[in-house]
Amino acid sequence: VDVQGASDTRLIAINRAGIKGIRHPVTIADKGSGIQHTVATFNMYVNLPHHLKGVHMSRFVEVLNGYDRAISAEGFESLLRIMITRLEAESGGIEMSFPYFMTKAAPVSRIKSLLDYEVSFVGRIENGSYQFTMKAVVPVTSLCPCSKQVSDYGAHNQRSHMSVSVRTSGLVWIAELIRMAEDQASCELYGLLKRSDEKHVTEKAYDNPKFVEDVVRDTAAVLNRDARIEAYVVESENFESIHNHSAYAMIERDKLES
Amino acid sequence: VDVQGASDTRLIAINRAGIKGIRHPVTIADKGSGIQHTVATFNMYVNLPHHLKGVHMSRFVEVLNGYDRAISAEGFESLLRIMITRLEAESGGIEMSFPYFMTKAAPVSRIKSLLDYEVSFVGRIENGSYQFTMKAVVPVTSLCPCSKQVSDYGAHNQRSHMSVSVRTSGLVWIAELIRMAEDQASCELYGLLKRSDEKHVTEKAYDNPKFVEDVVRDTAAVLNRDARIEAYVVESENFESIHNHSAYAMIERDKLES
Amino acid sequence: VDVQGASDTRLIAINRAGIKGIRHPVTIADKGSGIQHTVATFNMYVNLPHHLKGVHMSRFVEVLNGYDRAISAEGFESLLRIMITRLEAESGGIEMSFPYFMTKAAPVSRIKSLLDYEVSFVGRIENGSYQFTMKAVVPVTSLCPCSKQVSDYGAHNQRSHMSVSVRTSGLVWIAELIRMAEDQASCELYGLLKRSDEKHVTEKAYDNPKFVEDVVRDTAAVLNRDARIEAYVVESENFESIHNHSAYAMIERDKLES
Amino acid sequence: VDVQGASDTRLIAINRAGIKGIRHPVTIADKGSGIQHTVATFNMYVNLPHHLKGVHMSRFVEVLNGYDRAISAEGFESLLRIMITRLEAESGGIEMSFPYFMTKAAPVSRIKSLLDYEVSFVGRIENGSYQFTMKAVVPVTSLCPCSKQVSDYGAHNQRSHMSVSVRTSGLVWIAELIRMAEDQASCELYGLLKRSDEKHVTEKAYDNPKFVEDVVRDTAAVLNRDARIEAYVVESENFESIHNHSAYAMIERDKLES
Repeated sequence: VDVQGASDTRLIAINRAGIKGIRHPVTIADKGSGIQHTVATFNMYVNLPHHLKGVHMSRFVEVLNGYDRAISAEGFESLLRIMITRLEAESGGIEMSFPYFMTKAAPVSRIKSLLDYEVSFVGRIENGSYQFTMKAVVPVTSLCPCSKQVSDYGAHNQRSHMSVSVRTSGLVWIAELIRMAEDQASCELYGLLKRSDEKHVTEKAYDNPKFVEDVVRDTAAVLNRDARIEAYVVESENFESIHNHSAYAMIERDKLES
Repeated sequence: VDVQGASDTRLIAINRAGIKGIRHPVTIADKGSGIQHTVATFNMYVNLPHHLKGVHMSRFVEVLNGYDRAISAEGFESLLRIMITRLEAESGGIEMSFPYFMTKAAPVSRIKSLLDYEVSFVGRIENGSYQFTMKAVVPVTSLCPCSKQVSDYGAHNQRSHMSVSVRTSGLVWIAELIRMAEDQASCELYGLLKRSDEKHVTEKAYDNPKFVEDVVRDTAAVLNRDARIEAYVVESENFESIHNHSAYAMIERDKLES
Repeated sequence: VDVQGASDTRLIAINRAGIKGIRHPVTIADKGSGIQHTVATFNMYVNLPHHLKGVHMSRFVEVLNGYDRAISAEGFESLLRIMITRLEAESGGIEMSFPYFMTKAAPVSRIKSLLDYEVSFVGRIENGSYQFTMKAVVPVTSLCPCSKQVSDYGAHNQRSHMSVSVRTSGLVWIAELIRMAEDQASCELYGLLKRSDEKHVTEKAYDNPKFVEDVVRDTAAVLNRDARIEAYVVESENFESIHNHSAYAMIERDKLES
Repeated sequence: VDVQGASDTRLIAINRAGIKGIRHPVTIADKGSGIQHTVATFNMYVNLPHHLKGVHMSRFVEVLNGYDRAISAEGFESLLRIMITRLEAESGGIEMSFPYFMTKAAPVSRIKSLLDYEVSFVGRIENGSYQFTMKAVVPVTSLCPCSKQVSDYGAHNQRSHMSVSVRTSGLVWIAELIRMAEDQASCELYGLLKRSDEKHVTEKAYDNPKFVEDVVRDTAAVLNRDARIEAYVVESENFESIHNHSAYAMIERDKLES
């Protein structure tokens, strides 16, 4: 008996049916950094026409356990096509989130250490066409221009999360996307800083004050100039050091529409 | 010196600028249950035209601290209009999430207890028109039809989170929205069950097996018939008792578009 | 049939059996601020002697739904005694966590706003004796002395979470405990600050740099001098604005032991 | 100038000073499964005598970035000793948490898939002696004996988190600890189950009902018999499918004390 394969008479199609929150070890390939081992959390789904009762949920897990290649922004489509074929579906999507590590050299001492970023790949196939979105959450320092201006000395600053989500036509590497965001902050972060480095990042942030609005505008300006990027959402959430809430700003744009 | 009021020359408008994650005690008014005290988390933002450098973030907090009336689905617009006026903006939005409590009688013993639901009000004003969305996350029991059918006895079941988000024209109460979801589950939850009640809910769930796909379809059917509801997203996430991941389904529909 | 009341032959007593993560609306009474409505999350448990098979879990929920008085640090024992009597147990405990709000006046403009703190009450009865622990997580600003010293201008600062947990003999109010922590930070936080206030807190933090180690030491010194406090754990976690990890320090002391 | 190395006159020693919440890719070695790549979150700290002002926080990160060997329960001490030497401390600790994956064969079809567990290694050196604690959070199925007994058919069941934390003298592998917990549940979980497997796990759980109290008692009985285990804490949290809260039980024992 195939319970899931039975027919359904409610005449209501389902946009997404699948599995959510499954963790799986993966290898990620990105420009210049070779292969990186990490652990990803997946959401996987297909559409379900109105006449079918249910999807075979176990097949999503089979696809995941059967895929043994490195995953890259470039190759993400292949995983998605395997899933849609295996589920006998017409459209569907995969969302994959994972911590990604970059090796950075401290600005003065040049000592190397890792910094972690939360990265997501989202692929969708609808009406036959493939769409890929990549997102990175980039932790940075923001320093408040108002606080600097009104104070005789000092300025409040804090850790902020910049989020950049881009729908791309040409290939954009993870490392490139992170760099686009980091360069627009008051200062970027490092895992390891010696005293000379700490002096550098403190003074750099003070020399480079930015409102949460400035951070997203400056990032949008970079994304506007990049022809590979069709659409984007850029956000910044500043975990204010003088309040118990965040300052927040967001810009979204679809270049194909406007 | 008004740093935030300065002019900006990057020619990039900001979709949302404001504050995020601020907690505030509120009173909620809903049908039949009078006034309820709870604690809400707010996101508040306005749009920022391209020629303005920044918003005055402290004004959002002033609006929140100055508002002393009970908040209802019906009256949410008034809080939003106060904010937009105070920020001298043209458009903006408020997202408010809070635990909401319902008193329920156990199905057999009729003993009363509270059950908590996570509810969100989202109001937006864009191009002069107001739009209101209400969302409830409703915890329920789901029991797997496939497991019941293939097994000689028993059936795996689990807690699930149904999420129903509705954009409304007419007034829909919180309690109504929760009921629309709860009635489509294998069984609803209770805070307090005596032995006779436990027998009832166990047998009811077994008599009423539903796939995650069934749960969202049956809820969509109810929402389709309700003329007050212009658009909806209905989701269910089943925290499978036999796996370490969730089964998930989602249907979204905008009646004005299709 | 009383399944839970059956005898058990494994000869293993259970330290804690009960319920976890139940949300309930409560009213909190504290010095000077009258009655405050909030939402608490409860863990409730009793010990289970080796010869009893299980506890009657529904009775915990009955106790919670039946308690209609305001809860204070002083009166917390009464809720615990009701629970232990209802469960026919000899020992047990209640852990209650809730957001607590204080009205604060901004340092220069004196504009009032709320600030939220996560507070916990933990009561235990073991071998007939009652023990009460209160904990507050107090968000503050910390400013790094090293960064200030090595830099020609500026200093990195960030939001930090100070946690103070105290076992008391005499009565200590929530507001007192929060004050003990806040006064040891580089600067305290406010919900609402006007420009003159922002200048004040920026300069105050810069004038008052503290390592994470200084913050916990200065708080320990205050707690050491207070005769009502029998034992404490003081922690600080600084969400460093120049790294993607926290600096952390902790001091614990039981005055009755040392 | 060495700010952190300056003397301190408050005469208050600090139990723990260090870093918290730093993510780092690691390789884990365990019995039979070779080397496994995963991502760990670390807390690292040392004690600080009363006469020293602060620790050199950057050295913790140096230790992490400089360690390139696989980490095992057996070899965890070496990482800790390197840290204590580098920090010029006498005592300290490392807490490392990571998702760990096991390959499991489905009970009937024997199809293989991965299941993830959250594992922690905690090492401490105090007064010269090393102590190692390993913890695993093991997701399982629990089925309620009371619900089964009072109902004419069916029984409520749900996902539960068993947590087993053991202080060991002899070597215990991760895979062994997970097995000790899984075997005491109503049924263990799998990533991938075909229809014949689903029948098996449904019926197995129904044949094997257990209260939350039974689960921790049966695990305690296993841990009591194992001479390598000096002390333990065993917990189970059942995410009840008929309530919106958890059932919970805990047993702790130090064999050297009782």
